[in-house]
Amino acid sequence: MRRVNKDSPIPIYAQLQEIITEMIDNEELQAHDPIPTEHELCKVHEISRMTVRAAITTLVNEGVLYRKQGKGTFVAERKPKYQLSGLKGLTEGMEELGYRVDTKTLSFQHISCSKKIASIISKEKLEEAIQIKRLRFVNDEPYAIETVWLHPNKCPNLTEEMVKQKSLYEVLRKEFRLIPHYSKQTVEPIRLNEFEKEIFNLADEPLGLLFNRTTFNVDDEVIEYTESVYRIDKHKFEMTLKK
Amino acid sequence: MRRVNKDSPIPIYAQLQEIITEMIDNEELQAHDPIPTEHELCKVHEISRMTVRAAITTLVNEGVLYRKQGKGTFVAERKPKYQLSGLKGLTEGMEELGYRVDTKTLSFQHISCSKKIASIISKEKLEEAIQIKRLRFVNDEPYAIETVWLHPNKCPNLTEEMVKQKSLYEVLRKEFRLIPHYSKQTVEPIRLNEFEKEIFNLADEPLGLLFNRTTFNVDDEVIEYTESVYRIDKHKFEMTLKK
Repeated sequence: MRRVNKDSPIPIYAQLQEIITEMIDNEELQAHDPIPTEHELCKVHEISRMTVRAAITTLVNEGVLYRKQGKGTFVAERKPKYQLSGLKGLTEGMEELGYRVDTKTLSFQHISCSKKIASIISKEKLEEAIQIKRLRFVNDEPYAIETVWLHPNKCPNLTEEMVKQKSLYEVLRKEFRLIPHYSKQTVEPIRLNEFEKEIFNLADEPLGLLFNRTTFNVDDEVIEYTESVYRIDKHKFEMTLKK
Repeated sequence: MRRVNKDSPIPIYAQLQEIITEMIDNEELQAHDPIPTEHELCKVHEISRMTVRAAITTLVNEGVLYRKQGKGTFVAERKPKYQLSGLKGLTEGMEELGYRVDTKTLSFQHISCSKKIASIISKEKLEEAIQIKRLRFVNDEPYAIETVWLHPNKCPNLTEEMVKQKSLYEVLRKEFRLIPHYSKQTVEPIRLNEFEKEIFNLADEPLGLLFNRTTFNVDDEVIEYTESVYRIDKHKFEMTLKK
């Protein structure tokens, strides 16, 4: 194991992260191998326990390592990649990878509309929108927190019951003839807030990805707008770029 | 202005961020408007200066606000969106948006190859790769730090001079008949390190995006592998999703 360099401007915990990541990349450490104990890492690098913990916690939050109560810290399997390129929703995309996807509606309400939301989902002034907050599970683990906004005139009489456990796209297509043709999606890094950390059962200061997606039909009319917060410790997000 | 709720589990600085963002979304604050002073925000919300600063600094790092020495803090213009979907490199993509793109080579070397890099750019065992570190500028401002790895046999006699100020794709295409057909790119949120913060001239704890891109030719052979660190305060990153 390479040693940390105390004269470097790079913080020690960041160097230790790099060293552990390198050992995994070079297959000195393989999936499910235990990493050296905190005690060993302190001794080898002559650094404090706090520094070692900071490095390990970051790698746990990134899904590079995992902890097992009373057993120690281990190398995680390489993260499977979740494709961002297609129009498929989470349900379809994950099911193709062999995962079981579940959805729990956290709230379903008609809310008064911020100017920002109104300008996205409506061409005219809009007072009220349908807002659906949903928690998405992959293999029984919470994976994403989604907030969807819909124009109430485009899906009249939509009820909480109708979207329960179902692909929202499917409901919009079948019940309201809202057929997605393409989406525009932005991606941003975020620090997860207390609510998100609790839902994902993550400690310390994990990062996440925020996707803001607007979906259009073939006539370039907006069907829905969604803000989704994803954890990043379970999957990588990949897109295919073509001409 | 809505007040912070001191009984909420959401930290006060995060609530203040939300309140300011809402005011911008609702156009109560417009681009280049000054936001209320630190002093006013302390007084209105009955919170400490430290809390106000934490909220403002985060919004500055996200590019939602900007500071002007001795003048105060102002609302930034909405970030232009940079398209991620196509195969275009940064140069082409940004030039289409009307920006001037520049490149500075930080280092050009033949380096011994980690197992990870070798497994990406080569089918056989590989001892050495060409590594090029480049700083990309948009309108004279550093924007991304790119590290490219190339297989030395695929671009023999490539020199630092050849890639200077040029589109790397163009050089690979013209000199070595390496013609990109598609790329696979992962996206991850990161905390910028000291080196990156210095280059981008950002303070405190800014986030960034890390893109790892592998480019293939029409025969699915790897042409290049690139790790790029992007700042996020100047642009949004958008992709178009299609069936």
